[in-house]
Amino acid sequence: MEKVSIAEFERIFESVKNWGKWGPDDEIGTMNYVTPAKVREAAGLVRSGRRVSMAIPINTVAGPDNPNQAIHMVTQAHDVPVDGSKVRFALDFLGMAAHGDCHTHVDALCHISYDGLTYNGKRADEVMLSNGATAQDMDAYHEGIVGRGVLLDIPKLRGVKWLEPGDAVRRAELEEAAEATGVPLGEGDFLVLRTGHHRRRLELGAWDNGPPPKGEGKAGVHVDAIPWMHELKLAAFLPDGDGETVPSVVDGMGYPIHPLQVVAMGMLVSDSLQFEDLAQAVEEEGRSEFMVVGLPLRILGGTGSPWNPIAIF
Amino acid sequence: MEKVSIAEFERIFESVKNWGKWGPDDEIGTMNYVTPAKVREAAGLVRSGRRVSMAIPINTVAGPDNPNQAIHMVTQAHDVPVDGSKVRFALDFLGMAAHGDCHTHVDALCHISYDGLTYNGKRADEVMLSNGATAQDMDAYHEGIVGRGVLLDIPKLRGVKWLEPGDAVRRAELEEAAEATGVPLGEGDFLVLRTGHHRRRLELGAWDNGPPPKGEGKAGVHVDAIPWMHELKLAAFLPDGDGETVPSVVDGMGYPIHPLQVVAMGMLVSDSLQFEDLAQAVEEEGRSEFMVVGLPLRILGGTGSPWNPIAIF
Amino acid sequence: MEKVSIAEFERIFESVKNWGKWGPDDEIGTMNYVTPAKVREAAGLVRSGRRVSMAIPINTVAGPDNPNQAIHMVTQAHDVPVDGSKVRFALDFLGMAAHGDCHTHVDALCHISYDGLTYNGKRADEVMLSNGATAQDMDAYHEGIVGRGVLLDIPKLRGVKWLEPGDAVRRAELEEAAEATGVPLGEGDFLVLRTGHHRRRLELGAWDNGPPPKGEGKAGVHVDAIPWMHELKLAAFLPDGDGETVPSVVDGMGYPIHPLQVVAMGMLVSDSLQFEDLAQAVEEEGRSEFMVVGLPLRILGGTGSPWNPIAIF
Amino acid sequence: MEKVSIAEFERIFESVKNWGKWGPDDEIGTMNYVTPAKVREAAGLVRSGRRVSMAIPINTVAGPDNPNQAIHMVTQAHDVPVDGSKVRFALDFLGMAAHGDCHTHVDALCHISYDGLTYNGKRADEVMLSNGATAQDMDAYHEGIVGRGVLLDIPKLRGVKWLEPGDAVRRAELEEAAEATGVPLGEGDFLVLRTGHHRRRLELGAWDNGPPPKGEGKAGVHVDAIPWMHELKLAAFLPDGDGETVPSVVDGMGYPIHPLQVVAMGMLVSDSLQFEDLAQAVEEEGRSEFMVVGLPLRILGGTGSPWNPIAIF
Repeated sequence: MEKVSIAEFERIFESVKNWGKWGPDDEIGTMNYVTPAKVREAAGLVRSGRRVSMAIPINTVAGPDNPNQAIHMVTQAHDVPVDGSKVRFALDFLGMAAHGDCHTHVDALCHISYDGLTYNGKRADEVMLSNGATAQDMDAYHEGIVGRGVLLDIPKLRGVKWLEPGDAVRRAELEEAAEATGVPLGEGDFLVLRTGHHRRRLELGAWDNGPPPKGEGKAGVHVDAIPWMHELKLAAFLPDGDGETVPSVVDGMGYPIHPLQVVAMGMLVSDSLQFEDLAQAVEEEGRSEFMVVGLPLRILGGTGSPWNPIAIF
Repeated sequence: MEKVSIAEFERIFESVKNWGKWGPDDEIGTMNYVTPAKVREAAGLVRSGRRVSMAIPINTVAGPDNPNQAIHMVTQAHDVPVDGSKVRFALDFLGMAAHGDCHTHVDALCHISYDGLTYNGKRADEVMLSNGATAQDMDAYHEGIVGRGVLLDIPKLRGVKWLEPGDAVRRAELEEAAEATGVPLGEGDFLVLRTGHHRRRLELGAWDNGPPPKGEGKAGVHVDAIPWMHELKLAAFLPDGDGETVPSVVDGMGYPIHPLQVVAMGMLVSDSLQFEDLAQAVEEEGRSEFMVVGLPLRILGGTGSPWNPIAIF
Repeated sequence: MEKVSIAEFERIFESVKNWGKWGPDDEIGTMNYVTPAKVREAAGLVRSGRRVSMAIPINTVAGPDNPNQAIHMVTQAHDVPVDGSKVRFALDFLGMAAHGDCHTHVDALCHISYDGLTYNGKRADEVMLSNGATAQDMDAYHEGIVGRGVLLDIPKLRGVKWLEPGDAVRRAELEEAAEATGVPLGEGDFLVLRTGHHRRRLELGAWDNGPPPKGEGKAGVHVDAIPWMHELKLAAFLPDGDGETVPSVVDGMGYPIHPLQVVAMGMLVSDSLQFEDLAQAVEEEGRSEFMVVGLPLRILGGTGSPWNPIAIF
Repeated sequence: MEKVSIAEFERIFESVKNWGKWGPDDEIGTMNYVTPAKVREAAGLVRSGRRVSMAIPINTVAGPDNPNQAIHMVTQAHDVPVDGSKVRFALDFLGMAAHGDCHTHVDALCHISYDGLTYNGKRADEVMLSNGATAQDMDAYHEGIVGRGVLLDIPKLRGVKWLEPGDAVRRAELEEAAEATGVPLGEGDFLVLRTGHHRRRLELGAWDNGPPPKGEGKAGVHVDAIPWMHELKLAAFLPDGDGETVPSVVDGMGYPIHPLQVVAMGMLVSDSLQFEDLAQAVEEEGRSEFMVVGLPLRILGGTGSPWNPIAIF
């Protein structure tokens, strides 16, 4: 695939910038597109009551795609007396890097900077101190991510099980996939994008999805998809994998999708989702639209959060 | 207040036992009451689109009510080069005891045992090993906790700001509060119970809510409320505080409410919620019923999970 | 006590600066005074073979003097099968802030800066990135801290059990105490300074040793003691407490002793030691000098390390 | 190599048992062999004052031989104001599994059980609860591990760079290596055994040292070396690697060396040491004996500790 230059990346960056659009101190970016009417519309999609998780179980075993595994430790089982009565408690501790590939997580806008600036043009060294974010932190989303999701299932469209590493889904194919759903996709909606990343992992085992020669890479979207997301005024981007194509389509930049979405657009993005249960539900329910609820933990000063977003049909 | 004997506690325990009701291997207890129809009914309550968090921010500072604070650490700010481009990432790490009072959390059924048994009469030493639960773990709820919530606001009913520590709300008052809402409360519903615990903390500062003489205790429910919850077939119990009255009303037992709910009933319970925003929303929206969504993290073998449940009006 | 001005602090700072003394890239400061001959001399003090720990047990319970307790979690007891044989392993996890008051620890020179500079006049924002120190880190001491220690026991000199919070030991009294030991104290030696801080904790319980009004403060040394340490060319300073007097004797500065020692002198300092066993050993062995060995963990990029230094008689 | 049966393992186990030898409540096993005279003898070996670390730097990057990497996180750099003065502090947090292969560590006697019993015939389920050890914990060694070390350098004896994985050093070769040092090895001494494990890692890179087919294994000692250690009354065993040969020489048991040493003998053992600096020092100093000091952290209830033991010449 022909590489895109950094100059072209920066041209796209400028073209999709939402800086100032919702005021100089806005901290939730494209989630502003989700009006109360959109929440009602989303709730109106609940008809069968069926729910599916879009998260992977938190992974506590290091592996090629998970070098920073979560730690989960039982700190007390039922062998320890408590208060003299017959009651006993089991306790545990959970710890994880917010952006570890060991779990499905959501990004705060402070997570990424480009050329020293975060979303809305704030100075990165003022937004983010070594002991916590002073703005654009995870708690900015404490009312939860609630809206209407639409699944674009690229492997299904192509008739394959998954996209191979390095495959960059382009704008035209996304438009075709959106068309194929038979439902609209537009302002305030959540784009749920299936590349089959997790299906490949389930069938072939985990692989190092960093760039070659050490890694094998992964499938994601092309930078030309970003202006389309911007024009549609999508509120959130929920991919399996993390949306990045590896190796990157931009020459000299490893991860161009995140800065375009998070820094320029202020878009709500999540990484390491899985849509295996969702794809089956979409099939069986006969529709590609559903209510989505994702609830970040209330982490003051946090750059991201593990979460377990669900689709409700 | 007259103390209840352990014999009386055990009589109640037997009377509210749901063991075997949903099969010998059931892991979600009273959440079985939440049928697809209940989920649809809950979604049908979404009219204004207003959302409020029922969680407290995760507390990383030790205090009298929070001896096991969460740890939140920035592991990288924007001062560290990444890949030679102008992109930089801020990263952090979050760790916490699942049942710490530093955060709002939900209990898995493996969390509590009575007389060596967990919910459904399973052997506690087989359900819970020192390296994780083998059953009744947090991931049993991975499809999320979704249903219809009804707020019973006891301080409002009484015309006070909060209930004082040691106050045990009895069945009769809960019935009165339910009546006062003007909406039904029954099978598959979530009881959202406000004692004003968090309001007191906001106004007076944190206190040690363990038993005297060291602590000051806290307000909760009386054990006579449990049969009422059982008869109503409530699916979940969402209190501020944790539902326990301290000092306990049961002689010789520190925390009787949790074993009755979790072990005997298999009830979904959550601790350390706050309803200050919710109470205001209930007032302004003019109704005590709403959709509730709470999404536990997918912690395999886990005894609980931090979470951030929301109410949607 | 009359307060010292920041101008006077800065005058002392300049007068005790060892910057450049051991080359521009030196990372161990006053530990350069410990020559092989000093190590031999220290080993020559081993006569009875008696050893005593100078550390407190790592404290996993939050308390008024320990807001950031260590976390120690058993991750596996002997209830979990391993390999089909009769062998089983118990495992655990330990985590702690390097400078938490929950444990005895040693400081790396990167730990402290004054006016944007660390020891040897290095830029603090270059020495210390948000993901680790690039120089002056804990591993600079990986060959261990080995030398000759001399105990100055101020409470014993005064005939009291301990020094009260706020008491600042001055140069003259330190000289008197050194004289009282009957042994020399000079170049390359380790000053072991007992204020009785830990004895007070053992007898009265832990207290908040931050500044009033919230805290009660603690005993330490006066800034006038620093030039004396500098003139003597002491290699290390090992106090109970952490050497700081709280409230500080310097007007407008909370903790003046650490910047003078660590930033200006490049001195090896340790916090939260205890000398209760040591004081008894000194008494029974009839001498105030002994071999000291302290072994920091090999933490690359680390700002400090928990440790358990010992005295050998 | 011919496999040894479990029956033969158990015969050796019985023959080297020190249970009851130092009383029914002894918690330090073979460290009882280290008398004050041995400590003096060790200190007497300090002649040049040269010190070398025998630890590897704590490894925070997961790898094939380090699935449970340590976590080291800067929690504050010099970008965060402290008290209004020009003083700033850098802070960090360190966490690790006590027995992770990410660092050099020492085992407490509670760490291992055989057939439900730990050292001295104690019930493993009473010694080790899910929230900490009740006996034989790390703090039993709080006075430090101090003694006379003797290096047996097997690769040097053989004229190779390192022993290949799967190689089990037998008693006869250890006797030969001990003879070759020209110094005695006996009661209360520390056996420092070099297989070249770390040299191999430095030159070839890390490998999975678990058993084939997944791993490549590692070199260690044969079970027939254990009775020899027992007869010599050695106090401590300090190997690179962890002393175990993988695949094990005992049929049906993965790790026979640890239970023989820790459970049967009550021997002080350490894992993941490195002797590259030591081997050079031994060469240059012209002697294989030296003072050893290792200082476990004071972890109450702990099963092991990271440490950084040193040799002093």
